[in-house]
Amino acid sequence: MGFAATVLTLYPEMFPGSLGVSLAGKALEAGTWSLEARNIRDFATDKHRMVDDTPAGGGPGMVMKPDVLASAIDAASPEGDLRPRLLMSPRGKPLTQERVRELAAGPGAVILCGRFEGVDERVITRRGLQEVSIGDYVLSGGELGALVLLDAVVRLLPGVMGHAESGSSESFEQGLLEYPQYTRPREFEGEEIPAVLLSGDHQAIARWKQAQSERITAERRPDLLAKGAKKP
Amino acid sequence: MGFAATVLTLYPEMFPGSLGVSLAGKALEAGTWSLEARNIRDFATDKHRMVDDTPAGGGPGMVMKPDVLASAIDAASPEGDLRPRLLMSPRGKPLTQERVRELAAGPGAVILCGRFEGVDERVITRRGLQEVSIGDYVLSGGELGALVLLDAVVRLLPGVMGHAESGSSESFEQGLLEYPQYTRPREFEGEEIPAVLLSGDHQAIARWKQAQSERITAERRPDLLAKGAKKP
Repeated sequence: MGFAATVLTLYPEMFPGSLGVSLAGKALEAGTWSLEARNIRDFATDKHRMVDDTPAGGGPGMVMKPDVLASAIDAASPEGDLRPRLLMSPRGKPLTQERVRELAAGPGAVILCGRFEGVDERVITRRGLQEVSIGDYVLSGGELGALVLLDAVVRLLPGVMGHAESGSSESFEQGLLEYPQYTRPREFEGEEIPAVLLSGDHQAIARWKQAQSERITAERRPDLLAKGAKKP
Repeated sequence: MGFAATVLTLYPEMFPGSLGVSLAGKALEAGTWSLEARNIRDFATDKHRMVDDTPAGGGPGMVMKPDVLASAIDAASPEGDLRPRLLMSPRGKPLTQERVRELAAGPGAVILCGRFEGVDERVITRRGLQEVSIGDYVLSGGELGALVLLDAVVRLLPGVMGHAESGSSESFEQGLLEYPQYTRPREFEGEEIPAVLLSGDHQAIARWKQAQSERITAERRPDLLAKGAKKP
């Protein structure tokens, strides 16, 4: 059995969403990975099926209730489930390609999608939720974050990408951004493909690509270079 | 007329996707924003409707053709269109909440979704595409990035969020991550809501929230503090 994803959400109809088409969708049909979306509201206990309540101490919005979330997590991820429990949240640790690789090598993930102002802190600590952020911006909920995380993971699962797209020359895989790409036509609006790429000199081409990757990374993301680029 | 988004993609069926439900979906129906997804393949000129070709200089994967993309962009964004032209790409400038606010205050965006190994560099420079990255990981295409960007923007459009959720206390809005949230029940699995939040002392509560935001940001994201936190 492949990578098993369980998503806890108030909007199960958002899944598989964009993961149902293209490579991820084909891999889902093929059983390379599985996806189960559970509605958190099914675990509400009062007659109004309340999942949120006003924040303690006041403030805007609503907070997701710890008791309801704990029940949803316990049902989706019983004792012995080795999958990490993730909470999509702008307060989380930024997702990196390295973390994506780790997740893809594991048994799957239980992913809780936050909504409203956030999640009661006690369920985060008591259920060992790892907060994950996909970037420094605020979304209307964790669902798109979950879709992004799963897309990044699924494309690395064995058999999902063709061998030709194995990804080793991609951005971040060597701590560098990717070099510029060119394809036919040779001349586009008066601009030619750089001559070195048409030279057939494989060493010169490799040197050019490496130099371009380093230049673009230095220009755009010096923070990546500071983290220590692994040379190929 | 509200914020106008045009998306250029090989997978128009991915839109509006998750943006069709919840707040963004209601705002779309209400005309607060508009979304048009155009198929890049409609601008291919050969009989096989080719949109990509092998990379100059060799290497894995395929590169999206500059002539086809230029036609698609020119049709979607004729001269005089004031909307920025964005290319979702891991090589891009990282998306921030500040950039999201700028976009939300503007007329809209034309968003090109890359696929395969990337896009011919010449169409990026000649059509003035701004490369935008939603995070340091690689997705199977730019479509999820476009959905993420649009979700972040749309929730900030006038009338989309209720006043109570105006977002001013959210993560990143003051350069800090958000403080922990609590709600009923008062005791959850033996753990009480912090007493200060139930004290009714608004000044003490405000001090606690500020101190918690600073603590969490220092623990998790010292890089945000280094960028200079704007105090409220």
